[in-house]
Amino acid sequence: MTELTGEHFIGAKRRKSADKFYAANPALNEAIEPAISQATADDVECAAMAAADAAEAYERIGADRRAQFLDAISEHILGLGETLLQRAHEETGLPLARLEGERGRTVGQLKLMAAEARDGVWMSLRVDPALPDRKPAPRSDLRMRKKALGPVAIFGASNFPLAFSVAGGDAASALAAGCPIVVKAHPAHPGVSELIATAIIRAAEETGMPEGVFSLLQGNTHEAGQALVADPRIKAVGFTGSRQGGLALMKIAAARETPIPVYAEMSAINPVILLPGALKERAPDLGQAFVASLTLGAGQFCTNPGLVIALAGPELDAFAAAAEAAIDETAQQVMLTSSICESYKSGVEALTSQDGIAAHLPAPASARNCCAPALFRTTAARFAGNHALQKEVFGPASVIVACETHEEIAALLTKLEGQLTISIHCTEDDASRAAALLPLMEEKAGRIVANGWPTGVEVCHAMVHGGPFPATSDGRTTSVGTLSIERFVRPICYQDFPAQLLPPVLRDDMLPAAPHRHDGKWRF
Amino acid sequence: MTELTGEHFIGAKRRKSADKFYAANPALNEAIEPAISQATADDVECAAMAAADAAEAYERIGADRRAQFLDAISEHILGLGETLLQRAHEETGLPLARLEGERGRTVGQLKLMAAEARDGVWMSLRVDPALPDRKPAPRSDLRMRKKALGPVAIFGASNFPLAFSVAGGDAASALAAGCPIVVKAHPAHPGVSELIATAIIRAAEETGMPEGVFSLLQGNTHEAGQALVADPRIKAVGFTGSRQGGLALMKIAAARETPIPVYAEMSAINPVILLPGALKERAPDLGQAFVASLTLGAGQFCTNPGLVIALAGPELDAFAAAAEAAIDETAQQVMLTSSICESYKSGVEALTSQDGIAAHLPAPASARNCCAPALFRTTAARFAGNHALQKEVFGPASVIVACETHEEIAALLTKLEGQLTISIHCTEDDASRAAALLPLMEEKAGRIVANGWPTGVEVCHAMVHGGPFPATSDGRTTSVGTLSIERFVRPICYQDFPAQLLPPVLRDDMLPAAPHRHDGKWRF
Repeated sequence: MTELTGEHFIGAKRRKSADKFYAANPALNEAIEPAISQATADDVECAAMAAADAAEAYERIGADRRAQFLDAISEHILGLGETLLQRAHEETGLPLARLEGERGRTVGQLKLMAAEARDGVWMSLRVDPALPDRKPAPRSDLRMRKKALGPVAIFGASNFPLAFSVAGGDAASALAAGCPIVVKAHPAHPGVSELIATAIIRAAEETGMPEGVFSLLQGNTHEAGQALVADPRIKAVGFTGSRQGGLALMKIAAARETPIPVYAEMSAINPVILLPGALKERAPDLGQAFVASLTLGAGQFCTNPGLVIALAGPELDAFAAAAEAAIDETAQQVMLTSSICESYKSGVEALTSQDGIAAHLPAPASARNCCAPALFRTTAARFAGNHALQKEVFGPASVIVACETHEEIAALLTKLEGQLTISIHCTEDDASRAAALLPLMEEKAGRIVANGWPTGVEVCHAMVHGGPFPATSDGRTTSVGTLSIERFVRPICYQDFPAQLLPPVLRDDMLPAAPHRHDGKWRF
Repeated sequence: MTELTGEHFIGAKRRKSADKFYAANPALNEAIEPAISQATADDVECAAMAAADAAEAYERIGADRRAQFLDAISEHILGLGETLLQRAHEETGLPLARLEGERGRTVGQLKLMAAEARDGVWMSLRVDPALPDRKPAPRSDLRMRKKALGPVAIFGASNFPLAFSVAGGDAASALAAGCPIVVKAHPAHPGVSELIATAIIRAAEETGMPEGVFSLLQGNTHEAGQALVADPRIKAVGFTGSRQGGLALMKIAAARETPIPVYAEMSAINPVILLPGALKERAPDLGQAFVASLTLGAGQFCTNPGLVIALAGPELDAFAAAAEAAIDETAQQVMLTSSICESYKSGVEALTSQDGIAAHLPAPASARNCCAPALFRTTAARFAGNHALQKEVFGPASVIVACETHEEIAALLTKLEGQLTISIHCTEDDASRAAALLPLMEEKAGRIVANGWPTGVEVCHAMVHGGPFPATSDGRTTSVGTLSIERFVRPICYQDFPAQLLPPVLRDDMLPAAPHRHDGKWRF
């Protein structure tokens, strides 16, 4: 059993600050012991310095050793046992079964990124051999590899205390790439963050990683995180959270003397399109399945379906009726924090007060910090003319937009902001209409789903959890799946380097062991 | 023989503006006919609209057809024959032999990017098949491809009127990826730009590309280019030019309602380190070879070696003496434009007037817009303390910095800004010192060169023509070589899509023809 101290980790060293705050149990609205240190500017600087000091050694240690480190982290997370799940339950209000599932996902993600580090295709190894006799000029020996960017600042997200937090996807991909990380823990689950940090520290010691490869900063104000992004030693940022938060970090990063990339996953309403054939075939089933997706995790998923688009008519009415019935049967759920719950309630109120919108609101949740789902209906004309209807309400609220024509559906999609996902429900009868909408779906989202729901982000090779701005800060990337490693590397070309100065992976004797491109041809 | 009109191209249609300007022959300081149209805001909008209208069709046409288009462009460029070379010589003052070489490079680059489009690894095709029986939850069928970003704005560079201009590296990689392009021609070679545009238009017609896949805008003010980057239809920017110009475009792109990536190759002084063993073995040869690199193309290469770093002593004196002798024998060369020549001369004057710097200036160039090389010597202490000495002087000027200790060399490197290249000259005796400097070289540059000179950027698979800010706006990319295609694509995931709605490259019957990743395993 690990005793929590509420301290930061600067590398393996614990460090405390004078100012403190407490975690809160949202189900009870009570503070949880122990007091948590509030990171100061000096703490931030020490963590960034430790990461910078570790950067070269950690990169040179090689992908295989880093993979061992990631595997060891996953073992030590499992080793935390019930302590981790219990603390997570207290701090987030999420059910234990869900947290156990999320732990499995987190551990699987670390193992997948370990395997990806070993796979090595992400290094983009390339050799163009010298052509000394080429006319009119000889060619040099040119070799390329992609190399870690350096220390990465990572921000834990509130809604996935394990999978998108201290040892979540951003951490796993940055560590796999060879970047030391400094994690700013989310203040909604500082205890979970400290527990995970101990697992990472143990794994780092066990596998002989340089100290400073990982640091953890606690705090419940913006200052520490902002100072971290501004620190010249930090070379990239991973963030999952609100649009406001992501935009603020983008601004700080762009204003630095040396700007750095920010990978911020910010907000989305994840439109779902219901085409006539699908509605005709299975409107009630769709309504039920929609509510299951909408209310998953109290609607606190980045991919929560906040918008439904379909032609007006009796089939859509049947869908809505089934959805409303399902909503009425949904048990109230505790939300992650009292401020998230307050925001949800005021978001629902704001929608309810708009002109030309019909609200289906079951009895308000009675328990502390709990939410009840909310379903709204409006027309495409109202929706297009009122930006307030398009705002993400974080939680189980969604708007059904009834369109008069297929052209109106397309026009509505055209005007939408960038999204993480867009889903479409269709049958063979809808094929030509679906095909016509496809280019718009591709333009607006990172993942498009046919006959399914957006919640449930598979951790695999083909996943894209990203999307055009403002869904994320950088639509060329994903924060889930093996492609996420690409965010944390940059290419370097070595021209005519003597073998003993080349990085080992680029030496003639080492290259055959790694997938690479020789004079343009791929060798596996 | 193609008659120049000085007009823009909006797709295949010529279009003129009321305001005009003239190209200038820098060797004669004379205007060249015809008058060139000055793009208006309306011209910009029409070009962006044409590109947006073509985007979907051009992307869907597939990589093979796009490769045919690129190959056809290269044929039509060769078909322009002497007309192209003569006009380029008149507009830029560059010697015909150099221009012929640059044409070969440009044509080769188009063919290489055509081959890369066909190769297809850049699409990052991935399939994770459905696992309907997986516990606790089944897995969907998930497929990924990287897809063109959409219309790209490209800015021609003055110093390579063919290889970094209308059909240069940015154009070739964007077109290969499937992005329509709108090129803002450089005002120093509008005639060359129009000629190349005719070749592209002919190739587009011949290979059945959608109209609007290419447009050309002429102009000699900043307004048109800035409006182009601000246009909401433009999805990315390629630029090679000054730091000031690149920073201005970055700012516009970041301030858009939807920010877009800017790939700006801006400035570098390309440090060259001479280690003691190398200096001892071959100081005079190094001095001569250095000046050959420094004065290539009148010093107007992005990779021009503007800084030499070595230990003070008689060997460095011998290097400097040989370099000075070589400089005295260098014929004066005409620069690209009168304003570049003026900037060069004032840059040399500014360096000469600094405290603690010794200047070796041969007789000033006498012919119009010609430059003479300039070599400066100072100490590491002076260099570190005076930012004016670290500024890029575009042209054949370089500063030799004499260090007292090896620590001073490392300290100097640590303080340098990001660079396109860093070169190191060393022998086996220098191996441990070179190894100690290597991490710094990797951190600061996109390409590192052993026992060679930075000028001469091979167009191949392993090339990186990029580097940390401010060498470029985005150190994760290259603007030369096949990796350049990665700049213009983003990943999209298709979940449970019926075969007939999938993009053809991701269909089960098409996949075996393309390199892809199946459940994590690569298949070629």
